[in-house]
Amino acid sequence: MAKELTPRGENYSQWYLDLVVKAGLAESSAVRGCMVIKPYGYAIWEKMQRQLDDMFKETGHENAYFPLFIPKSYFSKEADHVKGFAKECAIVTHYRLKSNPSGTGVDVDPEAKLEEELIIRPTSETIIWNTYRNWIHSHRDLPLLINQWANVVRWEMRTRLFLRTAEFLWQEGHTAHATKAEAVEETRKILNLYADFAEKYMAMPVIKGLKTENERFAGAVDTYSLEALMQDGKALQSGTSHFLGQNFAKAFDVRFANKEGKEEYVWATSWGVSTRLIGALIMAHSDDNGLVLPPKLAPYQVVIVPIYKKEEQRNQISAIAAKISEKLKTKGISVRYDDNDNKKPGWKFAEYELKGVPLRFAIGPRDLEKGTVEVARRDTLEKKVLPVENIELYSENLLAEIQDSIYNKALVFRNKNTRKVDSYQEFKDLLAGQAGFILAHWDGTSETELKIKEETKATIRCIPLNGEPEEGKCIYSGKPSRQRVLFALSY
Amino acid sequence: MAKELTPRGENYSQWYLDLVVKAGLAESSAVRGCMVIKPYGYAIWEKMQRQLDDMFKETGHENAYFPLFIPKSYFSKEADHVKGFAKECAIVTHYRLKSNPSGTGVDVDPEAKLEEELIIRPTSETIIWNTYRNWIHSHRDLPLLINQWANVVRWEMRTRLFLRTAEFLWQEGHTAHATKAEAVEETRKILNLYADFAEKYMAMPVIKGLKTENERFAGAVDTYSLEALMQDGKALQSGTSHFLGQNFAKAFDVRFANKEGKEEYVWATSWGVSTRLIGALIMAHSDDNGLVLPPKLAPYQVVIVPIYKKEEQRNQISAIAAKISEKLKTKGISVRYDDNDNKKPGWKFAEYELKGVPLRFAIGPRDLEKGTVEVARRDTLEKKVLPVENIELYSENLLAEIQDSIYNKALVFRNKNTRKVDSYQEFKDLLAGQAGFILAHWDGTSETELKIKEETKATIRCIPLNGEPEEGKCIYSGKPSRQRVLFALSY
Repeated sequence: MAKELTPRGENYSQWYLDLVVKAGLAESSAVRGCMVIKPYGYAIWEKMQRQLDDMFKETGHENAYFPLFIPKSYFSKEADHVKGFAKECAIVTHYRLKSNPSGTGVDVDPEAKLEEELIIRPTSETIIWNTYRNWIHSHRDLPLLINQWANVVRWEMRTRLFLRTAEFLWQEGHTAHATKAEAVEETRKILNLYADFAEKYMAMPVIKGLKTENERFAGAVDTYSLEALMQDGKALQSGTSHFLGQNFAKAFDVRFANKEGKEEYVWATSWGVSTRLIGALIMAHSDDNGLVLPPKLAPYQVVIVPIYKKEEQRNQISAIAAKISEKLKTKGISVRYDDNDNKKPGWKFAEYELKGVPLRFAIGPRDLEKGTVEVARRDTLEKKVLPVENIELYSENLLAEIQDSIYNKALVFRNKNTRKVDSYQEFKDLLAGQAGFILAHWDGTSETELKIKEETKATIRCIPLNGEPEEGKCIYSGKPSRQRVLFALSY
Repeated sequence: MAKELTPRGENYSQWYLDLVVKAGLAESSAVRGCMVIKPYGYAIWEKMQRQLDDMFKETGHENAYFPLFIPKSYFSKEADHVKGFAKECAIVTHYRLKSNPSGTGVDVDPEAKLEEELIIRPTSETIIWNTYRNWIHSHRDLPLLINQWANVVRWEMRTRLFLRTAEFLWQEGHTAHATKAEAVEETRKILNLYADFAEKYMAMPVIKGLKTENERFAGAVDTYSLEALMQDGKALQSGTSHFLGQNFAKAFDVRFANKEGKEEYVWATSWGVSTRLIGALIMAHSDDNGLVLPPKLAPYQVVIVPIYKKEEQRNQISAIAAKISEKLKTKGISVRYDDNDNKKPGWKFAEYELKGVPLRFAIGPRDLEKGTVEVARRDTLEKKVLPVENIELYSENLLAEIQDSIYNKALVFRNKNTRKVDSYQEFKDLLAGQAGFILAHWDGTSETELKIKEETKATIRCIPLNGEPEEGKCIYSGKPSRQRVLFALSY
């Protein structure tokens, strides 16, 4: 195999990087911390976008677009918000270049300095709530359910393709409501929508929970998140939904007349998922041979590889492949026929394994005679020879089975790697290996949480929403606790 | 009518601005020159995107994503390119804010100055060709057919919603080819694709042509454009496709081994359309009552307005409306039922006229009795009472008829306002009124072109591709000319 990956067992980080680059998903760009998303990686993002966008629209949300730039003064109107983002933002200070005196290039024109600097949005609450002030006057203008697909910039010092980059693509929902109850309901509705997407499309089980104060979004009253477990035992946050209370409405003076004609501040939520989900998808399912993609998000679900020696065979196989493609398309199955003459079948087999195409069909001279096709599953690597007749029905069922099977495998893995721990020593011992999720009692204080983080690097990923009440003692302080929280090392 | 527009005849610019704002398409933001695209405007953009994206994919293009930032040194590698964009770009110089000493806000942290400034992309040739250097080695890597949907920034001094804004949304195709002929073919193929989109979807007739040297894209060998005529007699450039020769390949050292194993520089094209097309769409068809949208790009094609006094009537009408909606959906017709109780039917009629919804159905108590619905066409304002039975077939045909009719109306207008002119005096006289397109002879020199522009503000929009050879004399210099070119005042 030309494009060998570092095995996961040897070096998980290197395996991930090898895979992202060799499968043609993304690469680092010449600009510090920014990635180039290559066509195959972008095709996965498009699949994710299309599905999420449909789900947002089904729940009454509309898309809009707000400016890339945020005036510095707006950015600092919500005190916690600016504290959270000030240290990692790209700042535009000038608007013109001029030829330099030596004639060798261009310099920033000092005369074209902006009166007020502009921040490249790291998230858009401030510019959006400044806009909402003019859109919302009465309870009749509410709820306002808006989403934006956009790029954002956070000047991260340590970056990693998809998982943490200076620029990334995302969607950010920003909704406005007349009551606290309605805003809280929206926050939870979106959390559930994200969880459905993660589980049904990404085939990735997630735990829904509430963030602690330390891990909360800057400016939020409550932050909910989804936490998924990666194969190396680390957690990956896979979407957040924030209840913002009236913080941004107060900062930007957004009020409405309620049904009684009284003025009130508007209640807000915001929520987002990003290209980081591609990183999660990769790490949740893939193996040492390459990507394993759930059929619902695969850019193409079936690849057909012809095996031939003579031109005549090739023509016959192409005719069969065209027929099969037509059959598959009647079931909405996406298919690609690769008759590129420059590459051998063996090379192609490895390539499509690397790319995680859920099903590979090989058709050779013997298949021509027998009216068969060799079907290989990417997830299990199992092969079967099947008749061409009814191949579309078989494929439809098999793709559904693969989708389920990938999810179940990830679920079994997660359950196996979720452990209840009752002493700090046990906790530390676990963290020395491939920790996984750890459910432990915590006394509810930031002080304890930060001490544990300092000593072990583990953080509270969330307070699970489906956690059962259980009296216990904090593993660190011994103080009483009423529910276990979810600890893990994380990305 | 609550939202009256300035009539076109009174003040066309004000009419346009009124319409964009009052129909809820877009508004100016707090950031100089940047717009907020509101949900209804963004829904039109989504329709355009979906259609164009399908057309790009059908012709073998794939999407990818490249960084927002361009290092200053890359930006200046192609000499003409930097000259064209240097004076209007946003420049990032710092990457961190800090609390200011007075504690009242944040300042740019002078210690967080970038070693090399970053330009916010005004277009992405430089960053993309820098990337292509690593992607292209052999003729087997070609052609490379890539498109990107993105935001770009050009620091325009005079802005106008959709038509000219500091930040705008667009797609930019960047292709790489082994031969000049193939790159030229791609440039023209995309020009034709854009023209198909403009005519078949936007219902807007366009003239395809070649730009003169003065109007060429900075860095291109040839620029082709589409020119459409707006109702005030001005031209609007509605898409460009550039043959870039080997300019960017040379600037970024992108070479490939040809079939004979010899190294050559790669041939390039780039092409784009932007949210400016929404401006074109508005100005091409709309009237003093509001938007007129071609059915193929309308966010929803039918709106149903119930007219009732009693709750019982409302329920009956809602049941009929649900039935009609179902019937329409079987034909792929998008429909919205507006039973909002806060607004009167008359207000709704005006609102949906303003929003350009192609068909409005009104259902009142008498319709209930008779099994009818009142159907109003937005483009002609004609009304008919029709039976509910088979309404989906009728609507399907009517929407197709409206699409054609809007196109034909624009075509008649353009043909009426395209004039051949043979003297400079006649040329100037025409320009004093609502000029329209002027076909006139030109001697082929930049000098003459610039003189004419200086004296009349009219520019050569393009040298039409379908222009017939015709011997003549330049209207300005009297020198010989072989083909008429297209002059106009323009946006």
